[in-house]
Amino acid sequence: MTQSSPNSRVKSLHHLFSRQALARQKFKLKETIKYLNDPDVVFLGGGLPMSNYFPWKKIIGYSPSAPFREGIDNQPTDDSEATIAELVKYQTQGGCNTDIPLSTSLQYGSAQGQAALISFLKEHTELIHNIPNNDWDITLTTGNTQAWDATLRTFCDPGDSVLVEEYTFAASIEAVKPLEVNCFPVSIDDHGIVPEKLDELLNNWDASKKKPKLLYTIPTGQNPTGSTLSAERREAIYKIACKHDFIIVEDEPYYFLQMGNYQPKPERTEYSESPVEDRTHEKLLQSLVPSFIHFDTEGRVIRLDSLSKVLAPGVRIGWIVAQKKVIEKYVYLNEVSIQSPSGFSQSMVHSLLTRWGQTGYLEWLIELGHQYTIKRDFTMDVLTEVLPKSVASVVAPTAGMFFSIVLDGSKHPDFKTKFESDPLKVEEALFEASVKEGLLLVPGSWFQSPNFKARDDTFFFRGTYAAVPLDKLKIGLTRFGDAVKKFYDLYK
Amino acid sequence: MTQSSPNSRVKSLHHLFSRQALARQKFKLKETIKYLNDPDVVFLGGGLPMSNYFPWKKIIGYSPSAPFREGIDNQPTDDSEATIAELVKYQTQGGCNTDIPLSTSLQYGSAQGQAALISFLKEHTELIHNIPNNDWDITLTTGNTQAWDATLRTFCDPGDSVLVEEYTFAASIEAVKPLEVNCFPVSIDDHGIVPEKLDELLNNWDASKKKPKLLYTIPTGQNPTGSTLSAERREAIYKIACKHDFIIVEDEPYYFLQMGNYQPKPERTEYSESPVEDRTHEKLLQSLVPSFIHFDTEGRVIRLDSLSKVLAPGVRIGWIVAQKKVIEKYVYLNEVSIQSPSGFSQSMVHSLLTRWGQTGYLEWLIELGHQYTIKRDFTMDVLTEVLPKSVASVVAPTAGMFFSIVLDGSKHPDFKTKFESDPLKVEEALFEASVKEGLLLVPGSWFQSPNFKARDDTFFFRGTYAAVPLDKLKIGLTRFGDAVKKFYDLYK
Repeated sequence: MTQSSPNSRVKSLHHLFSRQALARQKFKLKETIKYLNDPDVVFLGGGLPMSNYFPWKKIIGYSPSAPFREGIDNQPTDDSEATIAELVKYQTQGGCNTDIPLSTSLQYGSAQGQAALISFLKEHTELIHNIPNNDWDITLTTGNTQAWDATLRTFCDPGDSVLVEEYTFAASIEAVKPLEVNCFPVSIDDHGIVPEKLDELLNNWDASKKKPKLLYTIPTGQNPTGSTLSAERREAIYKIACKHDFIIVEDEPYYFLQMGNYQPKPERTEYSESPVEDRTHEKLLQSLVPSFIHFDTEGRVIRLDSLSKVLAPGVRIGWIVAQKKVIEKYVYLNEVSIQSPSGFSQSMVHSLLTRWGQTGYLEWLIELGHQYTIKRDFTMDVLTEVLPKSVASVVAPTAGMFFSIVLDGSKHPDFKTKFESDPLKVEEALFEASVKEGLLLVPGSWFQSPNFKARDDTFFFRGTYAAVPLDKLKIGLTRFGDAVKKFYDLYK
Repeated sequence: MTQSSPNSRVKSLHHLFSRQALARQKFKLKETIKYLNDPDVVFLGGGLPMSNYFPWKKIIGYSPSAPFREGIDNQPTDDSEATIAELVKYQTQGGCNTDIPLSTSLQYGSAQGQAALISFLKEHTELIHNIPNNDWDITLTTGNTQAWDATLRTFCDPGDSVLVEEYTFAASIEAVKPLEVNCFPVSIDDHGIVPEKLDELLNNWDASKKKPKLLYTIPTGQNPTGSTLSAERREAIYKIACKHDFIIVEDEPYYFLQMGNYQPKPERTEYSESPVEDRTHEKLLQSLVPSFIHFDTEGRVIRLDSLSKVLAPGVRIGWIVAQKKVIEKYVYLNEVSIQSPSGFSQSMVHSLLTRWGQTGYLEWLIELGHQYTIKRDFTMDVLTEVLPKSVASVVAPTAGMFFSIVLDGSKHPDFKTKFESDPLKVEEALFEASVKEGLLLVPGSWFQSPNFKARDDTFFFRGTYAAVPLDKLKIGLTRFGDAVKKFYDLYK
């Protein structure tokens, strides 16, 4: 039933839509909107309050200025150095201000998002991803959590199947389960999904279960493991998606937190808090691992993008990149659920990004990546020192906020007795011991996919270097090292 | 299976939850949050970006100042008269600033909403509604459209039934249909739902269909009809809900746009744009028709409240009032969907409302109601003049943004011939004729509930006086009068 769309190689995904998505359509009332700005028609059709009653006359935001030579956390103390966005209610007649006026952003608007913000994000998407079909579009969301929920509603009926990494973001699993959609785990190693294992799983798919419609993956700086899929693996996985006719949903909040390989301390210069002078836009663009959508000739990738990790979570703006017919279904769902992200958020984000420009925004992302590199390097340095190698190991992440410390349950003296040879019992006991020591990492088992069984006696903890400054990181990681040594009785 | 909760008369609604709501629960990862601010624990548990990377140092909002003696649409031209909310990233040590700092509002936060904003809205709810049980709570939403979608997901499985007014907000119906939930219409007259008819419907419920779990109603300034339920009807309907064990979902965006009865022109003083001096808070509170939740001894009302019509739609903040066990389910859904409304919105709304105070906010609402009264009165005056009484009639609304003009299809000279005795064909033809005349009202049939059949040869158009100023209103309504006269061939 796969039909060819006007865009040569892009496939229709119609046969993969859920019943509710198939039932969603443009509704009549929305069609009258075309008359809203028709000068010949008095529009008494919609319950739009007049903007002269909106109780915000103007809003001014103060932000750091590109190119962030002082670093992104040294924010301007003096307003004269700030990027100032003064948002007024009404566009000045004949002015060259391109901001979204508050009378527009605080009014009901398109469920796809404000056109000016969409336009900036499309340009950014083109700059970064070089999508090999021209049938794509974007819609705003209120963040990737909402976007994933909307994706499930758009494609999955109860009884349907989705593929997830063996360990994945707990909230994403919690979104799936109540919908009576079945999660099946895909094998991962230190570098993410193993393409051969994925192909094998699908070649030998149990015919009593529905074939998966979606593969949900966090390909860059995976949550919780910290792994990042290489370009080669992404391409191989994309081919498997085409072969087995499923959609790849790439949840990519950490995409710009890419930091290259970790060089142990003696081989690199000391981390420094000063900005990176040697990274140009070209180097940034070259250094980024290509996204799944970069390989998307058939239009079967849905990219979930977010500002939560690069600007701020409370912005509650994300966006979906996908083929047009898919975006249309998301917009119909927006119309009867979230409507659109907050107008304050759209105005603030748009005014900041357009003042920075595409170039300034890249500078921001470069410097942000640099900050995370410093934190990653520092974390690995400390962990190398404090972790007992006989029982614990860590793979340095190349992107994102997370690292995972793998521990061998069988090396615990009481493994076979007190813990009944169950690594998860060791994990739980170590979790409690480490919290007592004053350090919280999250047990890896909390991120397990349904239908997954661990293959060996190891378990892991997810940690992050994102949330605290370096000094606190050092205290925390040292405490964890101590907790492990005590727990494994290595001080004897 | 209805159990009594600790709050004597409040009933459990557990048996009415959908399968997905029953499956939703607190998830483990969220439990670690209790350690986030524990000074003894270094929290490396969550992927929270550090707030020093948030690119907003401060935001300043300029708003009108209570008590709005110059009216609410005469907003301050001079900043010195404005209510200025300066939101900074970090709370000043020892300061008495009660704003939500940007480091908090732009960070991940509670899925219920920022505590300070919740607190203001709870106090407001207490002030207005006097709820007769103490088992209620509130959660933020991103507006009533999203709240209704969340309500359907919390209570309805495919095949379930909900009751709706015969004519109701089209988007609300569009939210229901794709979920394979069945809508059944409840009889309404000029004053909203007729309690006796509702009771009759339920007493004679077709046993082959599931009994309704929800009654969805817009009780005040109903969309599209403009009707408002009296206190007596609300109480009677509440008793029917208790008898037949369903939940009342009151969608109340227009609650504060209450304006009393329309007095035709000779009997009242000319409408004036000056502020109302004779309305006090006590008078406001007395003048408001009691909400359903005011009668809610059993905890079976879910109130959907919104700032869209009283502040601005783009704020995308609403809230739900319901019993605690129900609110808990909405919060679990928020955690895996919207997370929470925008932090910009929460900060801006909270800072404005707390500067105005509960009292100032009431002043705003009084003046807003006054503005809508002027527009309602003006609209009715014009319609009395321009509508041909032989074929058209209008009932003056006592609340909200909408009015409905009822027309008699059978009075059209071509009713039995060209229009085949079908009033909806007359409606469609008049819609087209009026758009040509340069005026857009929305055909009433666009708001019909599924399973509803009109009882007679009338049809109606929904209009609003909200969206345009008085001069434009006059032009539009006059054009409609002309269109009707031409269409019915009354100029002959």
